Amino acid sequence: MTSTPSTLPDGPQDTALPGVRPAVRAVPAYPFTPADVPIKLDQNENPYDFPAELKAEATRRMMERAWNRYPDLHADTLRARVAAYEGWDAGGVVLTPGSNVLIKILTELAGINQTVLTVRPTFSVYTLEASLLGASLVQVPLNEDFSLPVEGLKAALAANPPGVLYITQPHAPTGFVDGVDAVRELVEAARGWVVVIDEAYHEYSDTDYRALVRAHPNALSLRTFSKAWGLAGIRAGYALTSPELAENLQKLVSAFTMNTLTQCALEVALEQPAYVRQRVQEGVRERQRVLDALQAHPTCQALPSQGNFFLLRTPDPQVAYETLLSHGIVIRRQDNLPGLQGCLRIAIGTPAENDALIQAVQALH
Amino acid sequence: MTSTPSTLPDGPQDTALPGVRPAVRAVPAYPFTPADVPIKLDQNENPYDFPAELKAEATRRMMERAWNRYPDLHADTLRARVAAYEGWDAGGVVLTPGSNVLIKILTELAGINQTVLTVRPTFSVYTLEASLLGASLVQVPLNEDFSLPVEGLKAALAANPPGVLYITQPHAPTGFVDGVDAVRELVEAARGWVVVIDEAYHEYSDTDYRALVRAHPNALSLRTFSKAWGLAGIRAGYALTSPELAENLQKLVSAFTMNTLTQCALEVALEQPAYVRQRVQEGVRERQRVLDALQAHPTCQALPSQGNFFLLRTPDPQVAYETLLSHGIVIRRQDNLPGLQGCLRIAIGTPAENDALIQAVQALH
Repeated sequence: MTSTPSTLPDGPQDTALPGVRPAVRAVPAYPFTPADVPIKLDQNENPYDFPAELKAEATRRMMERAWNRYPDLHADTLRARVAAYEGWDAGGVVLTPGSNVLIKILTELAGINQTVLTVRPTFSVYTLEASLLGASLVQVPLNEDFSLPVEGLKAALAANPPGVLYITQPHAPTGFVDGVDAVRELVEAARGWVVVIDEAYHEYSDTDYRALVRAHPNALSLRTFSKAWGLAGIRAGYALTSPELAENLQKLVSAFTMNTLTQCALEVALEQPAYVRQRVQEGVRERQRVLDALQAHPTCQALPSQGNFFLLRTPDPQVAYETLLSHGIVIRRQDNLPGLQGCLRIAIGTPAENDALIQAVQALH
Repeated sequence: MTSTPSTLPDGPQDTALPGVRPAVRAVPAYPFTPADVPIKLDQNENPYDFPAELKAEATRRMMERAWNRYPDLHADTLRARVAAYEGWDAGGVVLTPGSNVLIKILTELAGINQTVLTVRPTFSVYTLEASLLGASLVQVPLNEDFSLPVEGLKAALAANPPGVLYITQPHAPTGFVDGVDAVRELVEAARGWVVVIDEAYHEYSDTDYRALVRAHPNALSLRTFSKAWGLAGIRAGYALTSPELAENLQKLVSAFTMNTLTQCALEVALEQPAYVRQRVQEGVRERQRVLDALQAHPTCQALPSQGNFFLLRTPDPQVAYETLLSHGIVIRRQDNLPGLQGCLRIAIGTPAENDALIQAVQALH
C-alpha cells in the first residue's frame, strides 16, 4: 500500500499562472490520441449504434422540444424513468453527463482534503480526479490473479481518515469479477466511508450489486449508458444510492446539466430497452469465441474477462500495437500499468471486427 | 468586506453519512421550483427557440453520427469553430456543457483551499461552488448605484491569498455595466489571481472584454450559448483565455464531455449565426420599450439594465410575485439579496409577453 499526498506543497508563486493550484499544474494532460483506422477497439464501446428507428424517434422528439429553455434542474422526469427501470427510489437516483462526471462529483463530495482509496491498477479517472482535487490517494495492489486485495483494503480503511472507496465490478481494466462475499466484506468494513461500486460493465458479467447497495446508505452503484446501451456519444451515467447520499451528491451536480437532446434519447432508450439484451448476449458470445480462438497462440496470452473487453498479454506491446494498427485495428496499451506488463486492452467488436482481430493477432510472433 | 471560511470545521463523524464533507452537508439544495405558467420570464432565457430550419439541419446531422462512439476528447473540431467565430487561438478555447460547469472547474483550478473573491450580490453559482469546494469566499458589497467597488476589491486582492476573482459584465442580477477603465484597473491589480470576466450577457450590452483578456494570460472571458444564442437547452458555454490557462483548465474538464448531439447543434448555429443579431436587436429594443412603459409607475421602480433582464423594485415583492403569477407570468424574486430590497428580476420576452408584463405590472399598487 502506498499513499500519495496529491496536494503538493505550495511553491513560490512566481510562475506565469500564479493563481492555479500546484496540484493541477503538476498533473499531465489526459493522454488520448485518436487513431483514424476502420476498427475501433480502444474505448470499450458498444460496436453497434443506437438502433436507427430509435434515433429517428429521439430526434423527432427533439424537434418538438424548446431548445431555448433550460432543461429540468435535476432531470426529475428522467430520474423517475431510470428509477422505474432499475426498481429504485427516484430520490436515490443521480444523473450526470457521463459517469466520469459522477466520479468528479464523488471526489468533491468526500475526497477533497480527505482520502480516495482504490486498487492498482484501476480506472484512471478515480486517480486523476483525486490528484486534481487534492485528495490523499491511497492505492492497494490487486492480487496477482487480479482479485481484490481484501485484507490490504481493510487495513487501508482502518489506517486512513475516511473518504471514498472505489470497487469496480467487473474490474477495469482487467475484466475480473470477485465473489460477492469479498465485496460485501469490504462494504461492511467501510462504515465511515462513501463506497462506490462501479458497475459500468455489469451487463456483460451478469452481476448486480443493487441489493448490497440498498442495505448500506453510504454505498452507491455507478452505472452508465455508454457501454451496453451503446450511447457513449450522448453522455449519460447515473448513481443508485440512498436518498440522503443522493441529496448531497445532487448539490454538487451542476444545475440543468442533462441537456434536452440527451434527455430525448434516454427517454426513447428506456421505453424500448430490448435491443440492449440482444447486444449483450452477442457480446458475451463473441467474447468467448475470441478468447477460445486465441487460446492456442504461441506467444500471446488472452486473459479471461467478464467485461466487453479483455487483456492480451504480448511479448512486445509496442510491436503488437503497431501490427494491429497496420491491420486497421486500434486498441489500448496498458503495459505501463503495474501488474499488466505487456498487456493490451481490446474491446469486443462486431463478429466481422473480431474475425479481423483474431487474424491480426495470429500474425504476432 | 466579509470573509466566510466555507470549509467548516470537522464535527464528530457520527451522522448517517460520515464520509461526506461537512461543507457539502452544510449547503442547502439549489433553490429552484418551476412554475407552470404560459409566460416564463424567470431564467433570463431567449424567448425564441433555435430556428426550426436550423433544428432540422442539426437533427439531420445527428442521424448521421454514431451515438455509440465517444465524442472528441475535448471537442477539438468545435473548439476550432468557436475560435474562428471569436477570432481567438483555438488553444485558448475551453468548452463545457454550460458555463456553470466552467465555474465549477475554475473553482477547482484556483479556489479549493484558496480564495474566491466576488461582489455582493452576485451570480449564485460563484458562491455556491466556493462553499461546496472549500474555498475561502470573500465578497465586497457593490456600490449603491450597483457599480463595482473598485477600491474595496483592490483591498481584498491585497489582503487575501490568491485564487479566483469574478467580474460580471453586464453584472447579474443588476444588469449594470461598468466603464472599461474600472475593469482594467481590477484586472491589473489581480496579477496573482485567475480573473474571470463573465460576459454571459455581453451581446445585450454591446461590451466586449476580449482585448483586455488577450493582454493578460491570467484573465478569461466566460461566454455562453444559453442567452443570445437561444440554446439554454443544449448546454454549452466556453472560456476564451491564454493557451497556458486553457491547458490547465482542460485537465479539469471531464473527458468526452461535449456530447455528439450538442456538437451537431453548435456546428449549425456557428455556421448560421445571423439570427442571433436580429434577436439581440429586438431584445434591446424591447428592453427599452418595457423600461419606458414602466417609468411612470406610481409605486414600482424599473431599474436600468444592459442585460436581457431588469430589476423591478416593488413595495411588496411577495404580493408582486403572486400578482404576476395570477397574470400567467413567472419571474424571479431577488428581494432576499443585500441591496436588492423589494426587487424582482424579470427577463425580456417576446413583444406579446412584454405587453402582458407591462399590463400586469400596471395592476400592482
